[in-house]
Amino acid sequence: MTQQINQETVGVEHWHALAQQLRVDSIRSSTGAGSGHPTSSMSAAELMAVLLSKYLRYDFDNPENPANDHLIFSKGHASPLLYSLYKAAGAISDEELLSYREFGSRLQGHPTPALPWVDVATGSLGQGLPIGVGVALAGKYLDKLPYRVWVLCGDSEMAEGSMWEAFQHASFYKLDNLIAILDMNRLGQTRETMDGWHGDRYAARAQAFGWHTIQIDGHDPEEIDRAYAEALDHEDEPTLVIAKTKKGRGVSFLEDKDGLHGKPVKPEDEARALEELGSDNNFIVEVQKPDSDPGEPFTSGFTGDLELPRWEVGDSEATRSAYGAALKAVGAVREDLIAMDGEVSNSTKSEEFAEEYPERYFEMFIAEQQMIAAAVGIQVRGYAPFASTFAAFLTRAYDFIRMAAISGANMRLCGSHAGVSIGEDGPSQMALEDMAMMRAVHGSTVLHPCDANQTARLVAQMADREGISFLRTLRPSTPVIYAPDEEFPIGGSKVVRSSDEDQVTVVAAGITVHNAIQACEKLQEEGIAARLIDAYSIKPIDADALREAARATGGRLVVAEDHWPEGGLGEATLSALEQDGTDVRAFEHLAVSVMPGSGSPAELMDAAGISAEHIAGAVRKLLNL
Amino acid sequence: MTQQINQETVGVEHWHALAQQLRVDSIRSSTGAGSGHPTSSMSAAELMAVLLSKYLRYDFDNPENPANDHLIFSKGHASPLLYSLYKAAGAISDEELLSYREFGSRLQGHPTPALPWVDVATGSLGQGLPIGVGVALAGKYLDKLPYRVWVLCGDSEMAEGSMWEAFQHASFYKLDNLIAILDMNRLGQTRETMDGWHGDRYAARAQAFGWHTIQIDGHDPEEIDRAYAEALDHEDEPTLVIAKTKKGRGVSFLEDKDGLHGKPVKPEDEARALEELGSDNNFIVEVQKPDSDPGEPFTSGFTGDLELPRWEVGDSEATRSAYGAALKAVGAVREDLIAMDGEVSNSTKSEEFAEEYPERYFEMFIAEQQMIAAAVGIQVRGYAPFASTFAAFLTRAYDFIRMAAISGANMRLCGSHAGVSIGEDGPSQMALEDMAMMRAVHGSTVLHPCDANQTARLVAQMADREGISFLRTLRPSTPVIYAPDEEFPIGGSKVVRSSDEDQVTVVAAGITVHNAIQACEKLQEEGIAARLIDAYSIKPIDADALREAARATGGRLVVAEDHWPEGGLGEATLSALEQDGTDVRAFEHLAVSVMPGSGSPAELMDAAGISAEHIAGAVRKLLNL
Repeated sequence: MTQQINQETVGVEHWHALAQQLRVDSIRSSTGAGSGHPTSSMSAAELMAVLLSKYLRYDFDNPENPANDHLIFSKGHASPLLYSLYKAAGAISDEELLSYREFGSRLQGHPTPALPWVDVATGSLGQGLPIGVGVALAGKYLDKLPYRVWVLCGDSEMAEGSMWEAFQHASFYKLDNLIAILDMNRLGQTRETMDGWHGDRYAARAQAFGWHTIQIDGHDPEEIDRAYAEALDHEDEPTLVIAKTKKGRGVSFLEDKDGLHGKPVKPEDEARALEELGSDNNFIVEVQKPDSDPGEPFTSGFTGDLELPRWEVGDSEATRSAYGAALKAVGAVREDLIAMDGEVSNSTKSEEFAEEYPERYFEMFIAEQQMIAAAVGIQVRGYAPFASTFAAFLTRAYDFIRMAAISGANMRLCGSHAGVSIGEDGPSQMALEDMAMMRAVHGSTVLHPCDANQTARLVAQMADREGISFLRTLRPSTPVIYAPDEEFPIGGSKVVRSSDEDQVTVVAAGITVHNAIQACEKLQEEGIAARLIDAYSIKPIDADALREAARATGGRLVVAEDHWPEGGLGEATLSALEQDGTDVRAFEHLAVSVMPGSGSPAELMDAAGISAEHIAGAVRKLLNL
Repeated sequence: MTQQINQETVGVEHWHALAQQLRVDSIRSSTGAGSGHPTSSMSAAELMAVLLSKYLRYDFDNPENPANDHLIFSKGHASPLLYSLYKAAGAISDEELLSYREFGSRLQGHPTPALPWVDVATGSLGQGLPIGVGVALAGKYLDKLPYRVWVLCGDSEMAEGSMWEAFQHASFYKLDNLIAILDMNRLGQTRETMDGWHGDRYAARAQAFGWHTIQIDGHDPEEIDRAYAEALDHEDEPTLVIAKTKKGRGVSFLEDKDGLHGKPVKPEDEARALEELGSDNNFIVEVQKPDSDPGEPFTSGFTGDLELPRWEVGDSEATRSAYGAALKAVGAVREDLIAMDGEVSNSTKSEEFAEEYPERYFEMFIAEQQMIAAAVGIQVRGYAPFASTFAAFLTRAYDFIRMAAISGANMRLCGSHAGVSIGEDGPSQMALEDMAMMRAVHGSTVLHPCDANQTARLVAQMADREGISFLRTLRPSTPVIYAPDEEFPIGGSKVVRSSDEDQVTVVAAGITVHNAIQACEKLQEEGIAARLIDAYSIKPIDADALREAARATGGRLVVAEDHWPEGGLGEATLSALEQDGTDVRAFEHLAVSVMPGSGSPAELMDAAGISAEHIAGAVRKLLNL
């Protein structure tokens, strides 16, 4: 029998039954699918029953309402519970619930924004809470709206360092709009967690990081009720509700049992399980809506004429400096533009933006995972985040970037200090795998400018770019070779040099463009004509231009890049050419193939085999000279 | 005037002067180089002066002595201090000290094992402590030797989550042989850290994670002396010494000043700085040696005849299961083989090893960064670690893998659940970028077997493999297609099908080998002969076999892979072919190019365009059929 409840009518007499309903649906959906995590869902049933029916403020008919609360399942494998909540909220039908994990269903194995009420994909543990920090930053500092961010965390994921980055940043930024709920069910995938039911340990840690903590019995709705009320009352600090629970709670042969992680109830045991739970509840929760739709608190997109910084041809400027200057310029006409940095803003030059727009800049300190998570969280609310650090240190957050692509996030990354051209700091600071890493992100854009004007134009386009875009900048100053009014569309390239006599095509990007210019000049003195393509857009790459150049130069190509040989410009070029069966007759790939040390940029580029000398040598080799 | 001091003769009267000497040398080396981090070195001078002269037990003439203590600079940018210590220990000359950051010098911008006394490369913050946990695990549980692991940490890096993974694991494993020294100098790169000089906060956190803590004035040698003595006395818990220090300590115009991070003293200011410090100290510290050289506590390499598990052709087995079985078999005849897992050992199947050799297995819980760091730390002592988790979650530790390559680490990784073939769990659990990521690691080996016998043979070779090797395994069972006695050398490939009539070459690996077999059988019925190459060794790839096949089949190739299009098998194949100018006339690349959801493996492979049907279609397309 269907029974409607809402915030006004709900009482402790409903919560137990609603929790049982969520358990029943978690079992039904996962048993139907033949896979999934019912036991991890069952432990948090009361926690979510109380939240949904009394505390959550969410308009399921209008998920875009800026005033909506946010609910993130950091323990994404508890998706059966999340979807059972959606059913209880009347958002999905029982039929759809039972499509769980079927091909084409929105109800995937782990939550993704294929469902309109899911902000971000989870399922890689330790990400939901740091992303929640990002949403809460948006709520408190950008939207300035009273919505709350509720994050359901698992206890296994408390071993992920990213959780503690989140704890620290949430406290530093006084995110009292963030409530983390720890479903401390004791059991991980193969064994007990490191901390079992020692709620005191989690409490001590969270307190030491500046959080308010509340320890409760996670199966007692009245305790849960009081904890949430207390959390909402608590100011200036985020709250962690530590709920002692049992995995598989409510079914005798599942409860607190080893070896049942990720195991659905067998079809032959389903009736027995449902009988223990009582399968005759059918609550529909009229979820409390936020007070009203406040309208978007900010304007998306350009709100005025963009005046990008300009450099004259022949000037010298580092592309990282151009990034900073351009970001500031774009920020002047984009109130939705938000910047953040991993405490190296005077190296990446995002400091230029930070100084001009401190209210739209977040210092994320040396915590790259939290930085990317914050960008993902902030873009949930429609802002356009740019996050920067050394490109080498973006590797620290690759899992977050990968997951952001599953979330369909629109996010811009800038990685500075690319390649051996950084010089003396040595290999730990050199990004030599970043193009491979960022190309292998679904729907990504990978840009690598060589001069300041080009950089500025690309930054402006990134502001409007969907998906995850990545700008790779250089530490040293490089000559300005393009006039300030030239355009550099994403997906394009520049023919830097060409003539009808060209015998070889040289493909370069970033620092190697400058090396290649020197090489071509040297070759010209020797009577060798080489075409030079500046492939500043690594992904999408300008396949047409590459193919045309290859055809015009007898299928002879040299690619030079300041990157390991794998996955970067060289392979992007080959992929582009082979797609259309272009005849590549002779190919020389110059890339960094030995481990660099310290030295000057010139010494290191020479040692890596990507200097002007080497490029000229490769051209001569292709011509058998 | 040179003055020799040692553990017996050193006293508080020397420590201040020795610290000043370390500061002088930190300034001289970095000013000479024109770059580097003197101020970050100066804050820790007393901390290291006391350590070197009284507590460290290290034979600089025999860095391989298993009884040596280990000293890791987690704040790798304090390299001037580390190198000044080496000079003070008589290990390097003043002339070599002044080669700091020069091309070809062992004294790189950040420490690397180019120096025999450096265990691992640091310079990406937050890695030294988790690696120290690995070394300490080896000391306590494997070597069972009384050496200690000293880790100098910066306060900025305390924002990295990986530090808290280390705190938790060190406590869980009761690593009382690990002493972390926090150089709390308050200032980060651009601003004050989140916690400034609030040593109480760090102490509360570390205690909450189960550490013993000692707070001291980091410029008071007597307090330092007492702290180290107390740390060595403390049992069952690791110790954190929280030392309040000042960046640039000792020079009035550097001390505790903003804006000086990573800035060497200008040449014109050098004399003034040295004068303030007093530049006439020239201590040589006779560093205490460990009691004796105990000899290696374990035997490296195979110690008996390897009996790999065997499967018969026609059986069905998941390659992940073959990994577990093979690991156990190799472990039986390799006492140096150590395994660890990110708490998914019943998925990766490393549990087979764990159950047989629990004393050589470390559970690293859901903390992939700490897992890789532990592997790096354990291999410092010569063991052969295998670390496993879902391949997708290795992205979490990419920065650690990248740095491990700079460390020259010998480390084996197994990533399971590759690609869309995992099925219902959805994209968060699918590795689709792992081959790109792992190929772009210097000196790496990337292997992707398709059947159980092949997997076992590759695991056996990985045990002896130098550098970082990666095995990509599959979730579903696949048919055994190779006899148990076949060999699969790294760098090789298998021609699965061939005939003199072959018109097209199909290149596949892992699950797509099986799809390709089906496709070829279908095509054969249509009268189309296709050669099938199983490229199980993705890096190094069998370029000869690919070129031969390409030539034999008119330059027509289809590559099918369960991976994003970028950086994987397709691009590895193109790179191999183009190196030698092989004529690729027509190329079809089947890879995952839309974001997958949930579904059965067959449904998902079909949707991704990598099923047998699609492979057959691509062959027909190349033949214009």
